[in-house]
Amino acid sequence: SHDHTVIDLERDILTKNNLMAERNRGYLEAKNILTINLVSSPGSGKTTLLEKTIKLLKDEIPIMVIEGDQQTTNDADRINATGAKVMQVNTGKGCHLDADMVQHAMKHLQPKENSILFIENVGNLVCPSMFDLGETKRVVIMSTTEGEDKPIKYPTMFETSDICVINKTDLLPYLDFDLEKAKEYALRVNHHLTFFEVSATKESGLDAWVAWLKHELAHVTITPHTH
Amino acid sequence: SHDHTVIDLERDILTKNNLMAERNRGYLEAKNILTINLVSSPGSGKTTLLEKTIKLLKDEIPIMVIEGDQQTTNDADRINATGAKVMQVNTGKGCHLDADMVQHAMKHLQPKENSILFIENVGNLVCPSMFDLGETKRVVIMSTTEGEDKPIKYPTMFETSDICVINKTDLLPYLDFDLEKAKEYALRVNHHLTFFEVSATKESGLDAWVAWLKHELAHVTITPHTH
Ligand SMILES: Nc1nc2c(ncn2[C@@H]2O[C@H](COP(=O)(O)OP(=O)(O)OP(=O)(O)O)[C@@H](O)[C@H]2O)c(=O)[nH]1
Ligand SMILES: Nc1nc2c(ncn2[C@@H]2O[C@H](COP(=O)(O)OP(=O)(O)OP(=O)(O)O)[C@@H](O)[C@H]2O)c(=O)[nH]1
Ligand SMILES: [Mg+2]
Ligand SMILES: [Mg+2]
Ligand SMILES: [Zn+2]
Ligand SMILES: [Zn+2]
Repeated sequence: SHDHTVIDLERDILTKNNLMAERNRGYLEAKNILTINLVSSPGSGKTTLLEKTIKLLKDEIPIMVIEGDQQTTNDADRINATGAKVMQVNTGKGCHLDADMVQHAMKHLQPKENSILFIENVGNLVCPSMFDLGETKRVVIMSTTEGEDKPIKYPTMFETSDICVINKTDLLPYLDFDLEKAKEYALRVNHHLTFFEVSATKESGLDAWVAWLKHELAHVTITPHTH
Repeated sequence: SHDHTVIDLERDILTKNNLMAERNRGYLEAKNILTINLVSSPGSGKTTLLEKTIKLLKDEIPIMVIEGDQQTTNDADRINATGAKVMQVNTGKGCHLDADMVQHAMKHLQPKENSILFIENVGNLVCPSMFDLGETKRVVIMSTTEGEDKPIKYPTMFETSDICVINKTDLLPYLDFDLEKAKEYALRVNHHLTFFEVSATKESGLDAWVAWLKHELAHVTITPHTH
C-alpha cells in the first residue's frame, strides 16, 4: 500500500533522527547523565511514576524532566510541583517525540553532570518505538488494566525497550489479569527485558526501581540503543 | 522541525486517503450499512465491547468486523468465537488503519445490506484520528483507568469523534476518577459528543448503547465525516 517515495522518505526521517539521537547520546555521555525514555499507552502512569520517583530521589540526585504531550502543560505542571526542573514539549498533531525536540529541550534545561534526565514520551504504544532519542535506557510501562496481550499485539515497543514496568498492581484484586502470562508474553518478544512491578499511586514496589536507577547512574556507560 | 517535502507528502497521503474513504462511504451507503470506527488507547476495551455488543445484536442484525492490530489475530479470534464474520488486518509497524485497508477487507467480507460493520482500529489515541475510513460514526472509548485528562491531552481524537464511550465503570470504586470532569473535558474539545457509560466486562450500561446502534441503523444517512 505504501509507495516507494513514502518508504524512502520514512527512511530519510529515521536516518536523520538517528544522527541527532547519537549527538544527544554524546552530549549526555559527556556529562554522565542517565537518560530514561519513558513510553506507554496514554494513562498507564508515566507522570505518576515520575512524581513518586522524584520524591524519593531528589535529595540525592539532580533530576530533570522533558514532558512530551500533544497538548496542555498538565504533566509539566505536575512535575514542576515536585521541585524538579521540567520542560514541556507539545507535539500538536505529532504522535511521538524525536531526537531534535529532545536536543532543543535539553539545551534549555542545561542538565547538570551526574544527574538523571527523564523523558516522558507522548502516550502511544506504537510510533515512539521507532524514534531513538539518545536515551541510555528505554522503559516501557504497561498497566494491569490494559490486559496481558499488549506485548505481543504491540511488539515493536517491547522489542526496543530495556525495562518493563508493570504498573497499577493495586488493582489486581479487581481485575482478571494474569501477571505471569503478561511477563511471559513480554519475554517472548524480548527476552532481555527486566521487570519492575509497582503501584505508583500506592507507592509500592518503588524501592527496587529506585535502586536500579541509582545503580544505572553509578555505572552509566552510554551505549547505542539498538532497535 | 518538519521540512516542506515531509509536509507536502503528508498532505498527499491524507488527500489520497480521503478519496478512498469517500469511495468506501459510497459503497457502504449503497448497501445501507452502519459503519462504526472504534478508536481508543491500547486496552481500553474495544474488543470486549464488540464481543458483548455482538452477543446482544446478532440475532437481529447481521454484523461484520474488521480488526486492526499491529500483530496477532487475537482480536479476530475473539470475534470469530461470537459467530460474527471477521477479517484481521495486521499493520506491522503501522500505527493506524487507512481507507485502503478497509476497502480491501470490506470486499473480502462482502457485507450484507442493512447490516453493521464495526472497524476496530489499532489501539492508538493519536494517529487514527487523521485517517477517515469512510465510517458513518467514529466512536472513541476512554477507560476510567486512564485518568480524566485524556480528552484535553489528546484532543484531535475527541474532536473528530461523534460518540464517547466511557468504559470500565465497574472499577470506579477503586479509582480516583471524576466522571463529570472527564465529560466536561471531552465536551470542551467537542461539544457535540454524546456519552455512553458502560462496563463491558460486567455488561452494564449496554442497553443505551445498543439502542443507539439500532436507531442509527434505522436512520442511516451517511454524511461525510468532517475533521
Ligand atoms: N490505581 C492506580 N492508578 C494509577 C496508578 N498510576 C497512575 N494511576 C492513575 O492513572 C491515570 C493516569 O496517570 P498518569 O500518570 O497521568 O499517566 P500517564 O501515562 O502520564 O498519562 P499520559 O501522559 O496522558 O499518557 C491517573 O488517573 C492516575 O491517578 C497506579 O499505580 N494505580
Ligand atoms: N474492569 C474492566 N476491565 C475491562 C473492561 N472492558 C475490558 N476490560 C479489560 O481490559 C483489557 C483489554 O480489553 P480489550 O477489549 O482487549 O481492549 P482493546 O481496546 O480491544 O485492546 P487492543 O485491541 O489491544 O488495543 C482486558 O483485560 C479486558 O478484560 C471493563 O468494562 N471493566
Ligand atoms: Mg503523563
Ligand atoms: Mg482489541
Ligand atoms: Zn504515528
Ligand atoms: Zn500514524
